Amino acid sequence: MASDSSYRVTGMTCGHCVAAVSEEIGNLAGVTGVEVDLVEGGESTVRVTSDTALDPERVRAAVDEAGYQLTGVSG
Amino acid sequence: MASDSSYRVTGMTCGHCVAAVSEEIGNLAGVTGVEVDLVEGGESTVRVTSDTALDPERVRAAVDEAGYQLTGVSG
Repeated sequence: MASDSSYRVTGMTCGHCVAAVSEEIGNLAGVTGVEVDLVEGGESTVRVTSDTALDPERVRAAVDEAGYQLTGVSG
Repeated sequence: MASDSSYRVTGMTCGHCVAAVSEEIGNLAGVTGVEVDLVEGGESTVRVTSDTALDPERVRAAVDEAGYQLTGVSG
């Protein structure tokens, strides 16, 4: 079943950061879309759509791989 | 004759920005090295070494192409 979750991510400062996070999350199996509302140097919101529910730990690992920190999940 | 100049660049916020600016300047003919002292969100210093003196306007164009602003040249 399609899923839509939002995550809070810190450490992103520019469009390159957005691209790096979007690419890592977008590479996760099942992900169909990634949208980032960038708050420079603050807590950005990353909305992820997928064709099945994602394990937040996979998203956390992808964000970490890109070099940023996942600080929360909005469900 | 080898040349060594420093430029002031604003708008850079992270390592991705450093990479983008370094790549664009590094692609200029004659450039042999680029070093960036990043001041996040402030005025960063970009030191460029080249095998002949560079026209600052070429450097300005490269910085602009990367998406940032050259605000000064230190010679």
